[in-house]
Amino acid sequence: MPASPSAQPDTGDLAVVRHDDRGVVHLTLNRPASFNALSRDMLTALDDAFAAIDPDPSLRAVVIAAEGRAFCAGHDLKEMRELGDEDAYRQLFAQCSRVMQRLQDCPVPVIARIQGLATAAGCQLAASCDMAVAARSARFAVSGIKVGLFCSTPAVALTRNIGPKQAAEMLFTGEFIDADQALEWGLVNRVAEDDALDDSLEVLLDSLRAKSQVALFTGKAMLARQRALPLGQAYAYAGEVMAANMMAEDVAEGIDAFVAKRAPHWRHR
Amino acid sequence: MPASPSAQPDTGDLAVVRHDDRGVVHLTLNRPASFNALSRDMLTALDDAFAAIDPDPSLRAVVIAAEGRAFCAGHDLKEMRELGDEDAYRQLFAQCSRVMQRLQDCPVPVIARIQGLATAAGCQLAASCDMAVAARSARFAVSGIKVGLFCSTPAVALTRNIGPKQAAEMLFTGEFIDADQALEWGLVNRVAEDDALDDSLEVLLDSLRAKSQVALFTGKAMLARQRALPLGQAYAYAGEVMAANMMAEDVAEGIDAFVAKRAPHWRHR
Amino acid sequence: MPASPSAQPDTGDLAVVRHDDRGVVHLTLNRPASFNALSRDMLTALDDAFAAIDPDPSLRAVVIAAEGRAFCAGHDLKEMRELGDEDAYRQLFAQCSRVMQRLQDCPVPVIARIQGLATAAGCQLAASCDMAVAARSARFAVSGIKVGLFCSTPAVALTRNIGPKQAAEMLFTGEFIDADQALEWGLVNRVAEDDALDDSLEVLLDSLRAKSQVALFTGKAMLARQRALPLGQAYAYAGEVMAANMMAEDVAEGIDAFVAKRAPHWRHR
Repeated sequence: MPASPSAQPDTGDLAVVRHDDRGVVHLTLNRPASFNALSRDMLTALDDAFAAIDPDPSLRAVVIAAEGRAFCAGHDLKEMRELGDEDAYRQLFAQCSRVMQRLQDCPVPVIARIQGLATAAGCQLAASCDMAVAARSARFAVSGIKVGLFCSTPAVALTRNIGPKQAAEMLFTGEFIDADQALEWGLVNRVAEDDALDDSLEVLLDSLRAKSQVALFTGKAMLARQRALPLGQAYAYAGEVMAANMMAEDVAEGIDAFVAKRAPHWRHR
Repeated sequence: MPASPSAQPDTGDLAVVRHDDRGVVHLTLNRPASFNALSRDMLTALDDAFAAIDPDPSLRAVVIAAEGRAFCAGHDLKEMRELGDEDAYRQLFAQCSRVMQRLQDCPVPVIARIQGLATAAGCQLAASCDMAVAARSARFAVSGIKVGLFCSTPAVALTRNIGPKQAAEMLFTGEFIDADQALEWGLVNRVAEDDALDDSLEVLLDSLRAKSQVALFTGKAMLARQRALPLGQAYAYAGEVMAANMMAEDVAEGIDAFVAKRAPHWRHR
Repeated sequence: MPASPSAQPDTGDLAVVRHDDRGVVHLTLNRPASFNALSRDMLTALDDAFAAIDPDPSLRAVVIAAEGRAFCAGHDLKEMRELGDEDAYRQLFAQCSRVMQRLQDCPVPVIARIQGLATAAGCQLAASCDMAVAARSARFAVSGIKVGLFCSTPAVALTRNIGPKQAAEMLFTGEFIDADQALEWGLVNRVAEDDALDDSLEVLLDSLRAKSQVALFTGKAMLARQRALPLGQAYAYAGEVMAANMMAEDVAEGIDAFVAKRAPHWRHR
């Protein structure tokens, strides 16, 4: 994300920098010196940033990116060590879990843009996004166990992304996997050469930009919810959702455009 | 499925053509001109075809195949566009969901034979089958989002077949994946060269034909049901099922044949 | 597992042989002549062996290995055939299911060391372990259907390890998959050349030996339990677990060591 200082406000102090680009909200973790650790300040900033996302007519996607050599190194170990009080830890993990689940409440797909390291709660953040694009040199680990702290909350997200044996190995060994392994196991969607990471991300974003907002909102709202239901109930719910979706102006336009072999003109651009 | 016109009844009018072959019921979607779209007529025909499958002693498998250049293009968009009434949509999606779940009530494994396109509810149909064999040139998409309609009911089946990030990408982008990608992600079991698709299918069918009917019935009835249960309950249920299965004549014969290193003679052939 | 007869007690009579090595309990199925079939005696011996594992300070992992040319060929078909009574079968499968679930109650990760065949309940045993290392020539099948007996209880473990279509194919056809296929589908973690199987296992074990016991205990106890919960509840539970884990001496030491870039000294070695 290179930017000329004169063209943009000074973002040096902000833990999370927001940059909007044609329907996409880019939230960039901005504590490169601490590998974008999820300190309480960072979690609050991320929580606030998601709270501030208005479903304005252009909104199509949110990207979580990061400054510097790491995507996110997880919790701030030094800060954690100083808390020293079980109740304070309880609050910290509750705050972190709330932020991770907030990604699900976001009205549009959330995409992780991953370079460098994604470790512990940083790996959880990648797992919690709807989609993820990684640089070839990116590496992933849930490494808490190396300091005696099993990555229990990251495990919640990780075990809902990849197979149980693969998750167990990552969690019990704390070892890194590379981006290609993450792709094979389903932790990320695409791997790009390091200098082509933004190009790869833009291809995905352009695909989302071309979509109807009502369709994106509908999908984002129903996808996790139906997954939690037994099959019969999931179908009953999904059928209701789809019938409501059919009544949207955009669907009439979309089908007409499809039949006429022209591009659709969505109500909200 | 080439057949000499003189040897078979004229099936030109039927939405779904049934053809029985040594214990296997082949149901062929027969609206090639509309890419076998799941119109209300097609759904009714498919529902009726499943209802008409008797568990006669020879039954070992059901195949869902399709005439023409596409396996199934999903719902009939023009028909849908004309309904125009939320209640009618609700009924349509309920009917479709009922057919998809009916595959689970079929007493034997249901196998998709996929060539060309399997899109939207057509991809859902492939995902809903117990197994799937695809031609190398087959392609899969849940493309409703391209006309503004998120594939909510297809998502129910798709997210129960492949990983969450891969499902999200297919559902939010609407892009095609090829057969090899579908194989890697677990959406199909086997990929064959286009001109060897039926050979590949027959290898699988011959394997099922050689099995005891009581074992196939037992497995089909228990597999989805145990999946919906917590681990302890799943084991309690599966233990009961397996104890009952042990009392079948076929098991005594099967074990005797195994010990004697001869082929078993099942009660029902 | 070569051992000089003079150095070790005679283990010829035991169904399961225990050997402890620097924090790792190796349980070796010791009925090579019957391909380590899970007879009632073997199940009792395995159950007892797990019951006898004390969480002594050095404990880091349990390995399930097997003597001879097969890892485990599943139930003892001849013994089963002779039982002949549904109630006796019910008890047998209940016993087997109890053993499989007991692996989850073990306080540390359980790792399967697989050579040769892992079939039916033997494949289930591999699936039930937290991790698995396989020899290149190992093969896996849930082959009960070949004798008329659908592998219902193995299906419980298998469908919680690999994708639904792949599980269905294995269960309905009873065909073998090789170790590389098992790796790709997520049934095992690592595949090693046959003569390097123990080296590969030791690398994994050394990684676990280097970990804090409290972290391993914490992870083992929470991993399966959180998986069974809805997302919000899973996070609430995991947050409590992680806060308690933070209070362990080992974490203070682990973080201090990490910051000081030295190896940690765990309370229990």
